[in-house]
Amino acid sequence: MGFFTSPIKTFEDLYLHTVRDIYYAENRILKSLPTMIEKAHDPQLKQAFQQHLHETEGGAAPEADLRAFRRGAGRRDLPSIDGIIDEAEELISDVDDPNVLDAALLAAAQAVEHYEITRYGTLIAWAKQINRPECVPLLQQTLDEEYATDKKLTQFAEQRINRLAE
Amino acid sequence: MGFFTSPIKTFEDLYLHTVRDIYYAENRILKSLPTMIEKAHDPQLKQAFQQHLHETEGGAAPEADLRAFRRGAGRRDLPSIDGIIDEAEELISDVDDPNVLDAALLAAAQAVEHYEITRYGTLIAWAKQINRPECVPLLQQTLDEEYATDKKLTQFAEQRINRLAE
Repeated sequence: MGFFTSPIKTFEDLYLHTVRDIYYAENRILKSLPTMIEKAHDPQLKQAFQQHLHETEGGAAPEADLRAFRRGAGRRDLPSIDGIIDEAEELISDVDDPNVLDAALLAAAQAVEHYEITRYGTLIAWAKQINRPECVPLLQQTLDEEYATDKKLTQFAEQRINRLAE
Repeated sequence: MGFFTSPIKTFEDLYLHTVRDIYYAENRILKSLPTMIEKAHDPQLKQAFQQHLHETEGGAAPEADLRAFRRGAGRRDLPSIDGIIDEAEELISDVDDPNVLDAALLAAAQAVEHYEITRYGTLIAWAKQINRPECVPLLQQTLDEEYATDKKLTQFAEQRINRLAE
């Protein structure tokens, strides 16, 4: 068994396990954003990352479920989001040109968005199925925000950042 | 600098770096799919993973660009996709109930799909910008397939797998 302190026996266990994972992931993303903001060259990209920081701080992990875990029983790492962010940081250190770096940063941010999209999408489907409808609105609101951010980043890449990197 | 043997100086370097990454990722996914197929309990889920295996074998990494790299210069690891797949394998080992396991496997497959969606989306935007239009159709075809697979998995989860796991 991995880091989960209780075995995953039921569908609800799986849901709670994944809630705990997204809680860890949101915190890992929060910690990485100041570096992204600092490294971004384009003022508009800086601003977009700052906005993402505010949204993430708003927090959407279903706190009620998290209370089901004792404090200190949280994950200490999570290979998926750790890998996505570690890789982005590795890439950042390999790029000197500020415009190329901005294109790399924006792509890394979209990788993070898609990580969140898939996890929140899964959690919504599972919350409905295990009869936890009270968890759905907050999860759905977060998913909608992640989709909106991803779309904005795509437009921003095409209209500005990738053109500057060329 | 990380594993990349040449520094990333230009936007095209960044594109080629990411092409190499997706090539590694596709191979890592290919290697993981037989385990997913073996572990899946539901015959329809097995079939869905088998179909994904066939699609991935079809291969979409822009081979022409890969030839730009000497053989043997490829990545030996890639924290993002390695993390996503390692985490899925860790989770699999924590779940005994076959129906709950199927729900976990399906969610893991969707995490992989979203990883591919974000990377191919980025590559398409970059290929257009660096004036490599010949690379776009194959990348676009792959992106369309990944979106279609993700959508099918969502429907399949809601209509069958999550209900069985309940």
